[in-house]
Amino acid sequence: MPNISQKGSQMPESPIRKLVPYAEAAIAKGKTIYQLNIGQPDIKTPEVALDAIKNNNLEVLSYSHSAGFQSYRNKLAQYYSKHDIPVNSDEIIITTGGSEALLFTMGSITDPGDEVIIPEPFYANYNGFATASGVKVVPIQAAFEDDFALPAISEFERLITEKTKAILLCNPGNPTGYLYTKEEIQQIADLAKKHDLFVVADEVYREFAYDGITHHSIMSIPGLEQHAIMVDSVSKRYSMCGARIGCLVSKNKAVISAAMKFAQARLSPPTFAQIASEAALDTPQEYFDEVIEEYTLRRNILIEGLEKIEGVKVAKPKGAFYCIAELPIEDAEDFAKWLLENFQLNNETIMVAPAAGFYSTPNTGMNQVRIAYVLKKENLERAIEILEKALTQYKNR
Amino acid sequence: MPNISQKGSQMPESPIRKLVPYAEAAIAKGKTIYQLNIGQPDIKTPEVALDAIKNNNLEVLSYSHSAGFQSYRNKLAQYYSKHDIPVNSDEIIITTGGSEALLFTMGSITDPGDEVIIPEPFYANYNGFATASGVKVVPIQAAFEDDFALPAISEFERLITEKTKAILLCNPGNPTGYLYTKEEIQQIADLAKKHDLFVVADEVYREFAYDGITHHSIMSIPGLEQHAIMVDSVSKRYSMCGARIGCLVSKNKAVISAAMKFAQARLSPPTFAQIASEAALDTPQEYFDEVIEEYTLRRNILIEGLEKIEGVKVAKPKGAFYCIAELPIEDAEDFAKWLLENFQLNNETIMVAPAAGFYSTPNTGMNQVRIAYVLKKENLERAIEILEKALTQYKNR
Ligand SMILES: Cc1ncc(COP(=O)(O)O)c(C=O)c1O
Ligand SMILES: Cc1ncc(COP(=O)(O)O)c(C=O)c1O
Repeated sequence: MPNISQKGSQMPESPIRKLVPYAEAAIAKGKTIYQLNIGQPDIKTPEVALDAIKNNNLEVLSYSHSAGFQSYRNKLAQYYSKHDIPVNSDEIIITTGGSEALLFTMGSITDPGDEVIIPEPFYANYNGFATASGVKVVPIQAAFEDDFALPAISEFERLITEKTKAILLCNPGNPTGYLYTKEEIQQIADLAKKHDLFVVADEVYREFAYDGITHHSIMSIPGLEQHAIMVDSVSKRYSMCGARIGCLVSKNKAVISAAMKFAQARLSPPTFAQIASEAALDTPQEYFDEVIEEYTLRRNILIEGLEKIEGVKVAKPKGAFYCIAELPIEDAEDFAKWLLENFQLNNETIMVAPAAGFYSTPNTGMNQVRIAYVLKKENLERAIEILEKALTQYKNR
Repeated sequence: MPNISQKGSQMPESPIRKLVPYAEAAIAKGKTIYQLNIGQPDIKTPEVALDAIKNNNLEVLSYSHSAGFQSYRNKLAQYYSKHDIPVNSDEIIITTGGSEALLFTMGSITDPGDEVIIPEPFYANYNGFATASGVKVVPIQAAFEDDFALPAISEFERLITEKTKAILLCNPGNPTGYLYTKEEIQQIADLAKKHDLFVVADEVYREFAYDGITHHSIMSIPGLEQHAIMVDSVSKRYSMCGARIGCLVSKNKAVISAAMKFAQARLSPPTFAQIASEAALDTPQEYFDEVIEEYTLRRNILIEGLEKIEGVKVAKPKGAFYCIAELPIEDAEDFAKWLLENFQLNNETIMVAPAAGFYSTPNTGMNQVRIAYVLKKENLERAIEILEKALTQYKNR
């Protein structure tokens, strides 16, 4: 019997995946689970997007251009220009989710054995795309105490080798919720120029910035045009995760032309989803205002609730819809399983993501969990109550 | 300025891509082009599929399971079982087109430097997926004179090395239209078992078998369960290329579990397109009967028409909707460009795909073109007329 490849066996599993059987068993027993573990928003998709799908009158569902509909790219370029990101449609490739944009980026700028420096904790699937491309992830630790601000530039410099091709930033961060300041982005830009590195910025949560703070895109730094690659997505912006539409944006022509060859090999991004995504660009501003208000409320409830629990500390998020909390426990994975297997409060429990899976350095963040605040106010309040009771019971178990 | 990777620069361009600027220039000059160069059918997508999209009532377009909707996989397993492919839903991963299934397959069974043997001419994007995965394509030449039947097994054996991981077959073939016989499939199966290789069968044209000949799936060979990986797609079957839904099917648990990790990293296949694809399984048999009748007619018109042209020879296709023709010219790429740039008959011309791009061996098939018979009868007849006139004029240019 033929064997799978090393790559196939080394592909990492999602850190949440391990908990799934425990969750399934809990559900089978009739428990209700508040899912704090995934970034699937409950927010409604804008009606303009859904209506565009319902009202489509395609008769032949054909391939689109490999870079996506020209009409969509034009409108998207306008949208970015309004958001201080001056790009034209040739500098945009529509991808199957931000995920595919990350994969195309890795393929275009790295060869097997090359290194990419990523502040940790980071979005766990970066590991998967890196493994698929044979790339080594070099983590640089961001500090919980600083709310996961950018590590010192000197620390980055210590890690740069001949093999380093890029620095990958997630802004705002999943799982940290950290929003980089203009100064931090500028520091990274200077570093990239000094060492001739790409800066890949995963900005899929760009709209989710709270407390009136402005998001600073990597694409708006003058002089960084040849270094900057932005990854974006409609998944979170319009609560359209299932569309599978994202994009890769760069002013570096060689990057775009390499990425286009990956895009051509897979033919085209999904057509229906492009129709919805193009229409979504007409979403009224009120929609976003309401969404941001809702998430701000949820964040505040979550943070205040967590801070009231004895022994719990929180890195305060300024963007996205995640936060990392330190719990008075030793092993968050054990706790997460226990929550599903052995705990219930009126037959309800919660599911959290152990944070260790977001660190590349072994045995790091063992007492931390990532909490996604994608639930309604009441459910979030209830979930915090459950966490509090559970922590006491876990301690005394 | 940082450089793109070797991989990025080595990614092949689609063989048709080079002609695009010539086609654009011709269109700009007001010429009408009959596109014989691409596999985008003009057949209507089944109404059941389009209606399912129009009538969907999703409010939150969320991620699906990474392996695709369970309901879709169940129904698909039933569908395959009816087609002599006994699989259950756990043995199916829904992918973003057959393209992604090919990419996951390469990632799951090969490491950089590994080899995959593929009869040439073959679907050109196999080169792209191989380059993306760092895999070496080892071509084995199928003969035009034999209508591109399976090369002798001894030829395969000569090419097998320690690095060989798989044999990749396209059945029925793009660009050849060849449909492997049961004996040929059995020979490949025996070879794979003898040398412990995977057999990857790209069966995306499975329904397109003419003259009453039965298609034999790699999945229906007893004893090959651990070696066989099938790639499938809704693109051609339901004329739903823009959906971007395919699947990877295998009874080898290690393959499925490796491929699942690639699937999890990219989160999920497109949701709308899965709704359409699941509904498409209810397409009435008449639809297929009509489609096959239509393609048989087109094929017959094309083949007869081509054979009447002096100096033109055709490898007779029994499946899919392509054929390879040998023309009385030296360089099909030059001819294809000339057709767009310098030729017109009543302001009309044709676009064909030079076949050299489907061969991995350099300078092979230089006088061959691939013709897709995806046009209506009248247009196909007109296209043949244009080709005939063009060949005379090209000779005398
Ligand atoms: C930081 C980050 N990047 C990229 C993605 C990929 O999203 P998608 O492929 O749905 O665009 C996600 C999804 O959760 C994410 O959190
Ligand atoms: C032989 C073959 N395999 C795979 C594909 C990929 O198709 P898709 O990704 O649309 O399923 C095609 C498309 O033309 C093809 O011809």
